[in-house]
Amino acid sequence: MRVVRTVEQLREAALFMRGAGQGPVGLVPTMGYLHDGHASLLRRAGEICGTVVMSIFVNPIQFGPNEDYEAYPRDERRDLELAEREGADIVFIPAVEEMYPREIRSKIVVSSLTTRLCGASRPGHFDGVTTVVAKLFNMVQPDYAFFGLKDAQQVAVLRQMVDDLNMNVKIVPCPIVREADGLALSSRNVYLSAEERQQALVLSRSLREAHSAVEEGRVATTDEVRELLKSVISSSPLADIDYAEILTFPQLEPLEGNFPLVEAEGEIIMALAVRFGRTRLIDNLIFTPKEVAALV
Amino acid sequence: MRVVRTVEQLREAALFMRGAGQGPVGLVPTMGYLHDGHASLLRRAGEICGTVVMSIFVNPIQFGPNEDYEAYPRDERRDLELAEREGADIVFIPAVEEMYPREIRSKIVVSSLTTRLCGASRPGHFDGVTTVVAKLFNMVQPDYAFFGLKDAQQVAVLRQMVDDLNMNVKIVPCPIVREADGLALSSRNVYLSAEERQQALVLSRSLREAHSAVEEGRVATTDEVRELLKSVISSSPLADIDYAEILTFPQLEPLEGNFPLVEAEGEIIMALAVRFGRTRLIDNLIFTPKEVAALV
Repeated sequence: MRVVRTVEQLREAALFMRGAGQGPVGLVPTMGYLHDGHASLLRRAGEICGTVVMSIFVNPIQFGPNEDYEAYPRDERRDLELAEREGADIVFIPAVEEMYPREIRSKIVVSSLTTRLCGASRPGHFDGVTTVVAKLFNMVQPDYAFFGLKDAQQVAVLRQMVDDLNMNVKIVPCPIVREADGLALSSRNVYLSAEERQQALVLSRSLREAHSAVEEGRVATTDEVRELLKSVISSSPLADIDYAEILTFPQLEPLEGNFPLVEAEGEIIMALAVRFGRTRLIDNLIFTPKEVAALV
Repeated sequence: MRVVRTVEQLREAALFMRGAGQGPVGLVPTMGYLHDGHASLLRRAGEICGTVVMSIFVNPIQFGPNEDYEAYPRDERRDLELAEREGADIVFIPAVEEMYPREIRSKIVVSSLTTRLCGASRPGHFDGVTTVVAKLFNMVQPDYAFFGLKDAQQVAVLRQMVDDLNMNVKIVPCPIVREADGLALSSRNVYLSAEERQQALVLSRSLREAHSAVEEGRVATTDEVRELLKSVISSSPLADIDYAEILTFPQLEPLEGNFPLVEAEGEIIMALAVRFGRTRLIDNLIFTPKEVAALV
């Protein structure tokens, strides 16, 4: 495994691996403080690609002024151990000045998809994500790029960008990885107190219960599902709901409150963002109501 | 010369030429209705590149709602003759539905540089330019891309985009090509009546006179140069000035009104946009005042 810290080294290393004719190049962009979710991305990349590049960069331009950019957890030594163990060939760890040698004036802005969910709560967040991901794509020129579906909106936004701008890369979404008790893995879980950690289980539990209730026909409409999600989450006194939404996926378009979910064409996402103290957690479940209906 | 009309054909053709090992690939993006200015871009591309790709596409998203998108002149047969004569290897002529198969939601937005000059007069114009150029870059993956300096702000904006987003292409700016009497070549010149055509000479004349006046020390400050430009242009009764500006190049930052130009570091642009009837013409002159000062 090769660790590179400059764009020039990265280009050289990626070019060399491509020249070695080892098959497609895969990119796994991360903000570090790696966990099993990231490991699953590396493993998936290893299945498809001959060369796996991982980037580790806490990207300042995707954080709002009152967000946790400074506090975001970092542990380079441990990250490099995990990357090596999970088969990364090249790890790119740039300094902020390497990624942004001067004030960046060019942004990639995806409209519509970014107005809801995390886009509404975190203005400018997705512009920062699309811009840094486009930069990484241009540096590495990967054939495939791997992203976790915990950030489902991010996956939808990046796919839109790639399609709209004819980028030469295929976005590969990978399933959410969870703790044994259901909590979705996140680098931000480290912020949680023991009590918050326990109560945070309401996220995954509310999603499972809402999904079962739809499957069993106990709830039918968007409004009913949303109310069920909110009532389960509210059973945790520490939970402060940012959003609990039911939208089409990957278009992220809202459904009428009285719309019967089983009539939806294609996939539906139930998406949550909930604060526990100063920690904001997200989780989601994507499913196809038609399949549920066919089973009933 | 190969004429292609779909993105897939274009990718195949460019890939084939690259595989043939003929050296760098050059792209000349145009809106067609080609003239000697475009021909000079093709010739410059032929000097540097083994394969020259020209695109001809009147890009709807860079026109404002009250601009001349519909009326913009088109003549495919003549364009193809010129492209062949000037050595293009591949000409890409897509339909609008090929470039925008669905509503485009992703835009590349360059700030600061786009707030002045044509950016102020044509809101959204440069977002449309950067977005379509990025799409073409992703389709062709050129090593070099050639743009005329008549659109000097466009060159500055595209360079900013390429640098900020780490795009793998070098922007090559090419000198303005003029008629014998000084009028800068433009596809829009065809809109001009005989009388407008004659009076439009004030653009290049005002730039030449202002440049001489600075060289000879007859005018010194930004305000004086701007006044000189405006007074020469106003000698034409049909001229309606949109802007006449003196800025740094390529940063496009304004200079104080009482700033003595000979003290400027680097290059200065005198940039004009003037309407004649319904036709808006632009022209500019880029020079280095220090060089002028050294001659005095």
